[in-house]
Amino acid sequence: MLSFYLVQQNYHIGNIDSNTKKIIEGIANAKKANATVVIFSELCVCGYPPRDFLEFDDFLNLCQQGIETILPHTIGITVIIGAPQKNKSLIGKNLHNSAYVLQNQKIIATAQKTLLPTYDIFDEHRYFEPAFEWNVIAIEGKKIALVICEDIWNLGNNPLYRISPMDKLITQNPDLIINLSASPYNYAQDTVRHSVVRANVLKYNLPMLYVNNIGSQTEVVFDGGSIAYNQYGECVKELAYFKEDEALITWQQLTQKTNNTQLAPTKLYYAATEVGKNQPTIAFLTAAKNIEEIYQALILGIKDYFTKMGFTKAILGSSGGIDSAVTLALACQALGAQNVQCLMLPSPYSTGHSVDDAVKLSQNLKNPYHIVPINNVYEALLNTLKPIYGNLPFNVAEENLQSRSRGNLLMGVANKYNLILLNTSNKSELATGYGTLYGDMAGGLGVLGDVYKMQVYALADYINRNTEIIPKNIITKPPSAELRPNQKDSDSLPDYPILDTILYQYIEQRQGPNEIIAQGYNAALVKNILRMVNINEYKRNQFCPIIRVSCKAFGMGRRMPIVGKYLG
Amino acid sequence: MLSFYLVQQNYHIGNIDSNTKKIIEGIANAKKANATVVIFSELCVCGYPPRDFLEFDDFLNLCQQGIETILPHTIGITVIIGAPQKNKSLIGKNLHNSAYVLQNQKIIATAQKTLLPTYDIFDEHRYFEPAFEWNVIAIEGKKIALVICEDIWNLGNNPLYRISPMDKLITQNPDLIINLSASPYNYAQDTVRHSVVRANVLKYNLPMLYVNNIGSQTEVVFDGGSIAYNQYGECVKELAYFKEDEALITWQQLTQKTNNTQLAPTKLYYAATEVGKNQPTIAFLTAAKNIEEIYQALILGIKDYFTKMGFTKAILGSSGGIDSAVTLALACQALGAQNVQCLMLPSPYSTGHSVDDAVKLSQNLKNPYHIVPINNVYEALLNTLKPIYGNLPFNVAEENLQSRSRGNLLMGVANKYNLILLNTSNKSELATGYGTLYGDMAGGLGVLGDVYKMQVYALADYINRNTEIIPKNIITKPPSAELRPNQKDSDSLPDYPILDTILYQYIEQRQGPNEIIAQGYNAALVKNILRMVNINEYKRNQFCPIIRVSCKAFGMGRRMPIVGKYLG
Repeated sequence: MLSFYLVQQNYHIGNIDSNTKKIIEGIANAKKANATVVIFSELCVCGYPPRDFLEFDDFLNLCQQGIETILPHTIGITVIIGAPQKNKSLIGKNLHNSAYVLQNQKIIATAQKTLLPTYDIFDEHRYFEPAFEWNVIAIEGKKIALVICEDIWNLGNNPLYRISPMDKLITQNPDLIINLSASPYNYAQDTVRHSVVRANVLKYNLPMLYVNNIGSQTEVVFDGGSIAYNQYGECVKELAYFKEDEALITWQQLTQKTNNTQLAPTKLYYAATEVGKNQPTIAFLTAAKNIEEIYQALILGIKDYFTKMGFTKAILGSSGGIDSAVTLALACQALGAQNVQCLMLPSPYSTGHSVDDAVKLSQNLKNPYHIVPINNVYEALLNTLKPIYGNLPFNVAEENLQSRSRGNLLMGVANKYNLILLNTSNKSELATGYGTLYGDMAGGLGVLGDVYKMQVYALADYINRNTEIIPKNIITKPPSAELRPNQKDSDSLPDYPILDTILYQYIEQRQGPNEIIAQGYNAALVKNILRMVNINEYKRNQFCPIIRVSCKAFGMGRRMPIVGKYLG
Repeated sequence: MLSFYLVQQNYHIGNIDSNTKKIIEGIANAKKANATVVIFSELCVCGYPPRDFLEFDDFLNLCQQGIETILPHTIGITVIIGAPQKNKSLIGKNLHNSAYVLQNQKIIATAQKTLLPTYDIFDEHRYFEPAFEWNVIAIEGKKIALVICEDIWNLGNNPLYRISPMDKLITQNPDLIINLSASPYNYAQDTVRHSVVRANVLKYNLPMLYVNNIGSQTEVVFDGGSIAYNQYGECVKELAYFKEDEALITWQQLTQKTNNTQLAPTKLYYAATEVGKNQPTIAFLTAAKNIEEIYQALILGIKDYFTKMGFTKAILGSSGGIDSAVTLALACQALGAQNVQCLMLPSPYSTGHSVDDAVKLSQNLKNPYHIVPINNVYEALLNTLKPIYGNLPFNVAEENLQSRSRGNLLMGVANKYNLILLNTSNKSELATGYGTLYGDMAGGLGVLGDVYKMQVYALADYINRNTEIIPKNIITKPPSAELRPNQKDSDSLPDYPILDTILYQYIEQRQGPNEIIAQGYNAALVKNILRMVNINEYKRNQFCPIIRVSCKAFGMGRRMPIVGKYLG
């Protein structure tokens, strides 16, 4: 009886030993379930994305050794895994991104990826040569069209690609499509993924098994949600999101009509931007489904960063503001409250309620905290600089000194106790450069760096959905950096609903100034915001990795010239 | 009389107005010289690399407007420029990297780039669709094979590529190859460039004009060195390195044998790594030719960063050590001594000679300086942290507090006076993580971040070649961070000649641990150094742009996982 076992796991890039061990466990589970075929995700042996590790022969050898280690476990079962493969042809780059079919201790077939995503966070043309021949693979009497992730992403009209590997394979009359993926999360990706899988199933009139991985790799979160579709375009199984999961799928399930119309998108989306395109921006950004997913993605992003880096404890500065409150609540959920230390770092310009609100928050969360006024450090800096500053008026330099005093104290505690400093900056302030390098921009991981301010508020509401964890006053007071008397964010920035909308149109939707102005926004306002984004590239360039939850996050997926002069 | 005017200019990415103006000036000069054809470099209209600016329709429109602005100046002359071009075919990515041939106010032809470099700092597959048809272009009665940069980089045996556009074009019997380039500098690139141009000339038996740009774009330095080869493989003209230059080349020069054998490499190199491969590492790294070039590249890198960012003045911390001394000398040369301010920032652990040496250096260079002891700031930090530190012993946390006190004071002055902080970290310490985030790793531009410690010494000797600018004591004393009593670099790191050799084999030559050990190095030492490199990726990820002088610099050209577990 032909049956398939889908294994959705969390790998660690480059940690071949640990990945191999997981894969062998997955095979054992598949055997227990009496599956005939067990399927893992793209590049599972080395983790995805392995980036420039792939440029080392030594690393490629370790990947091959990983496959050798797995082979003895393939007696009586067919195992499909992903790993880099040397290009045996003498032309083209020396590697393929491949799927390996293992059976009875032998590699019985391989398939190479054809469509190599090279946009946003993806760099596959940097490493891999695309497939140049396509053959179905015979497994247990069925012909399998074995493809990898992006390979199903061109149904003939995707402007990124010239060919469609499924159009090649369909000529050989396959019975089933199997797709090994490493498909990163963003809050529109599940819609896109279902729509593309279903469109392939309907076009080729074939069932499909689609296996994704889960877990966070520095900044990229993989959300799982592996799926099985029967040939009628019905989803017969969807695995868990944001956690490891496994499932047995029988041949019958793949070929029998269910009349289950759930999860059947009617439109084909190739890109997450298309999903959010014709919706009111703030409503889309803060939609309940999106916020709940973002919450889970951020928890996973924090947890995996610490686990994979070999750390257990975090520190952050708790200001009494909404960004640090949400970051703290997320960190306590991800790491355990006892593992998240807070410093409240009041300055001469802090309002009384700031420390009170922050203390109340930590009391609600039950995490350890210290109150550490920065006054002495700030004054020592001012006194030391007095001969150079002379009588020049107070300006952003003094504001930055306060922010950097905090950064310095936080790092001082982090270094002493082996903690990672979590950064609390949100996407709206990173976009506009409203932050201090080495001050509030310090930290090892940017928790909210891909979350607009309006989404931070929505996350706060979500965190408080059952009980008040974040004190109400933190949510309702006007945002302020408190670096000079009576300062408010609104002194320097437009109201957040407008700011976030314009930023989203520029960053995610890649609309230029004229296109955004045509949407009805004030021309001077739009130009000023876009200018702030572009002239602050130098600051973001020194920022820590940001957990990516949107289809266009600051970091490796957005590559802007720093000395460039465009809209700046 | 057919003649060609090569124009090697310094563009500003995205600054279409300024680039267009320069191009129009170049055309005017060509007309004055009575040239029939004037040739500029790759993507000169927008500057190279424009990176994700290319993802905005608005930006592409500006590029087209740039071409429109140039057209009226093409009466009576043929103008060849580079700009992005919409892909008119409905399949494949929407852009080409193209050369435009303008004549009498019309675009008379275009040619698209075929080989799209997607390695190291290059991301061309991210943006461009390769050419899929090839036609020679008739200009003034001659047939021109018009190609772009990397297009000549496959003579049939480059493992990166499957096709060779020149093999397509040669079937149409061209008379001349014209290549528009944007070819970045590294200290082996001039050798590579000549070898590839010459190999093409000899293979196809055609003369070639090769026009490069100059100037630094954030971290990438373009060195110029545009060349003309006759069909006999003789270099008939080489333009200046590291500065703008222009030259008239006649048809006669391109077709007449000269018996000049100068600049005629006998071996074909596709990559800079091949040049340094079989030479003793330190000798290669510090070879006089390389050091002189690096010196010029760094000067240009500093100058262009400031000019293009709209700044004139720099600040840096002058410790009395060799790294800050060389950085300061370079900055004074690039920006003028009066524009480079120094702070000497002694701590309780600074030795007496440190400030003296630094003062002497500034007296030699005649740049302004201040002595600003960090003691009060450091003590305020210690006192403030006392309730948290308790009686834990002095360790790296206190060392980092000192380093960050310096970073904070430097940034305090930079922010007050609108200066850019120059970072003085060298490649050896960035590689091994021997530096403090937000402390000595702070700054807007990494001047020495691609220069190994042994090369820093060689640069110091070069700077002192005529007269002692850097005091001898700075060069001869043992390197130290002076963050605890009697600290020396050699307490934590192997001797620099060994360290630098192993780092070069790992970073530039991409040799793995076994390959390096096989070269005769201690296995534990090699593994420890490679481990230090890999576990400190998180620090380098937050570092500023580094002026790139090698074929593998930290930054956009080296993309390593941060949470990755490989050799770590």
